[in-house]
Amino acid sequence: MATHKLLLLPGDGIGPEVMGEVKRLIDWLNSAGIAKFETDTGLVGGSAYDAHKVSISEGDMAKAKDADAIIFGAVGGPKWDAVPYEVRPEAGLLRLRKDLGLFANLRPAVCYPALADASSLKREAVEGLDIVIVRELTGGVYFGEPKTITDLGNGQKRAIDTQVYDTYEIERIARVAFELAKKRKNKVTSMEKRNVMKSGVLWNEVVTQVHKREYADVTLEHQLADSGGMMLVKWPKQFDVIVTDNLFGDMLSDIAAMLTGSLGMLPSASLGEVDVKSKKRKALYEPVHGSAPDIAGQGLANPIAMISSFGMALRYSFDMGDLADKVDAAIAAVLASGLRTADIKSEGTKAASTTQMGEAILKEL
Amino acid sequence: MATHKLLLLPGDGIGPEVMGEVKRLIDWLNSAGIAKFETDTGLVGGSAYDAHKVSISEGDMAKAKDADAIIFGAVGGPKWDAVPYEVRPEAGLLRLRKDLGLFANLRPAVCYPALADASSLKREAVEGLDIVIVRELTGGVYFGEPKTITDLGNGQKRAIDTQVYDTYEIERIARVAFELAKKRKNKVTSMEKRNVMKSGVLWNEVVTQVHKREYADVTLEHQLADSGGMMLVKWPKQFDVIVTDNLFGDMLSDIAAMLTGSLGMLPSASLGEVDVKSKKRKALYEPVHGSAPDIAGQGLANPIAMISSFGMALRYSFDMGDLADKVDAAIAAVLASGLRTADIKSEGTKAASTTQMGEAILKEL
Ligand SMILES: CC(C)[C@H](C(=O)O)[C@@H](O)C(=O)O
Ligand SMILES: CC(C)[C@H](C(=O)O)[C@@H](O)C(=O)O
Repeated sequence: MATHKLLLLPGDGIGPEVMGEVKRLIDWLNSAGIAKFETDTGLVGGSAYDAHKVSISEGDMAKAKDADAIIFGAVGGPKWDAVPYEVRPEAGLLRLRKDLGLFANLRPAVCYPALADASSLKREAVEGLDIVIVRELTGGVYFGEPKTITDLGNGQKRAIDTQVYDTYEIERIARVAFELAKKRKNKVTSMEKRNVMKSGVLWNEVVTQVHKREYADVTLEHQLADSGGMMLVKWPKQFDVIVTDNLFGDMLSDIAAMLTGSLGMLPSASLGEVDVKSKKRKALYEPVHGSAPDIAGQGLANPIAMISSFGMALRYSFDMGDLADKVDAAIAAVLASGLRTADIKSEGTKAASTTQMGEAILKEL
Repeated sequence: MATHKLLLLPGDGIGPEVMGEVKRLIDWLNSAGIAKFETDTGLVGGSAYDAHKVSISEGDMAKAKDADAIIFGAVGGPKWDAVPYEVRPEAGLLRLRKDLGLFANLRPAVCYPALADASSLKREAVEGLDIVIVRELTGGVYFGEPKTITDLGNGQKRAIDTQVYDTYEIERIARVAFELAKKRKNKVTSMEKRNVMKSGVLWNEVVTQVHKREYADVTLEHQLADSGGMMLVKWPKQFDVIVTDNLFGDMLSDIAAMLTGSLGMLPSASLGEVDVKSKKRKALYEPVHGSAPDIAGQGLANPIAMISSFGMALRYSFDMGDLADKVDAAIAAVLASGLRTADIKSEGTKAASTTQMGEAILKEL
């Protein structure tokens, strides 16, 4: 059996708690002889800043580059609001994405039937929802230069951020979206603001070309990002795969996640290019939810998004689709049995702790 | 009685139809001696392109600068998808905003009780919703330079857009938001992405300073734009006034509008700075909805957003708050009587035409 190297980066807030439940699952897979994972742990975000005054140390970056997959918790919190911009918690995550070339961010927005009523949307609008946002993750306004604040004198400053996209960056993310759609409902909706942004014009042009050249059998639609956002709220089930840039993807995937009512349940995968020689790709898996500092350390957090992110790792990094299916089924079974953490329980019922939820899923497996 | 100069720019799609109902209202106000409006009409968007190969002619720009207020319909449609970028329909609207200095875009998102069920959100989430998005409208990525597509050779192009904000631009929009909040529930939520964008860092800093210096008695909260979007979907009633930049404002105001279920009903105002001498400010009023080319020319469009935009003109440009209140009351009364255009009617009921709705509101007045 091949040994897989995992780097666990729990991060801040509820990160360590939910990561604990993944660790429990990994230990069990190892001891039951189902798989062979070698795990190492590192610091990222505010916890790295507290230890080393950086958002991720060079040592942990080296470990990240060496790992077969990174399992990431969450970063940030008011505690670090005043730290210098360059070493703010988020910088660690952004560096991992950029330096490892994790350009493709897959964010499924699935409405768990048992949780449809937790959505602020009407049941009929979200029941059965199953879409994926494919977000470009290493380009756009997140990394473009110049990115500066300049003092103009007279109490005036000027802030600049730069949105940059090259053809190849749009091509490769478009391919990820089309490939994914082929395994799903065969439909891709591309979103940009071509009526205002030159990057939107190029985005639209390149996605259209890739479609025509390589994926003419997949249905392609284009929508302006603002009306796309509206359509997501109005009738999300009209979509299958949505492909969009880094900043629109940030907004739209969060909104899509919130629609489902299952925010504490949603995983994500950030993937690099497949290496021609090794056939491997760098990958980082993280829950869609954040570090939730307000409930950290109290055993209240829902570990499902984190466990489900590990499930995505099994599927996308280790070709263990069957095992991933079993993890998904265990989560569904535990939910069906009625167990709920505080974020998803209905009024008057008793909430399970992070550990109770993790143990129940493991037992089900 | 003072004479007020209005420039009507119906634009494309359903623009001319809904503008027709405003024209009817203006004619009545004039003939009843309630007010004295002098109206002129111009072309903008695709209709201007068809006539002059530009998105707005210099002659109409001159009229716009000379008018006391501009009443704007909507622009765009698939017919002009292939026209050159510089003369696309939207360019006319963007030029009006920029050249007239209309930096403050006010977009109320109000849920009309009679229409609460038209929302995809649960009734309890939107009933009674009454928030305003204050969007910066002449800065940011919409107008920053460079804004280019460059050919890099080898089939590669590079697209660049630039997000730029200066201190004074953030200060003046913050003041608009705080002033508005003082007349409402006294709360402002500022949204940016300071964890990723330098413009977000400056935005946060300047809004905080203006608050401390001039509006310490107003409640100020800050939210990251992505989680702000989530909160809008989850529980929009937590907000009163939201202030944000041009691009985030575009996305967030559309989403807020869609939440209400009243998209065809929502007006907006775009205001310039108050001139020290004349005490006047440039202003443009337009519905939040677009040109809806699919239903254009069939008498199906809902004229309420357009009429209500004219109501905002009465209030903000002509100090006729009482008359504006009467327009609002007439709209509410007509809705309460059960009259509905196709976009807001429930299944099985008969839809009123654009003209029937316009006439009913006028009759109520
Ligand atoms: C933490 C932050 C930098 C990040 C982003 O903006 O990409 C987060 O919001 C996300 O969506 O993963
Ligand atoms: C038509 C378009 C240029 C415009 C914008 O992006 O500002 C529209 O979406 C709006 O919100 O007024």
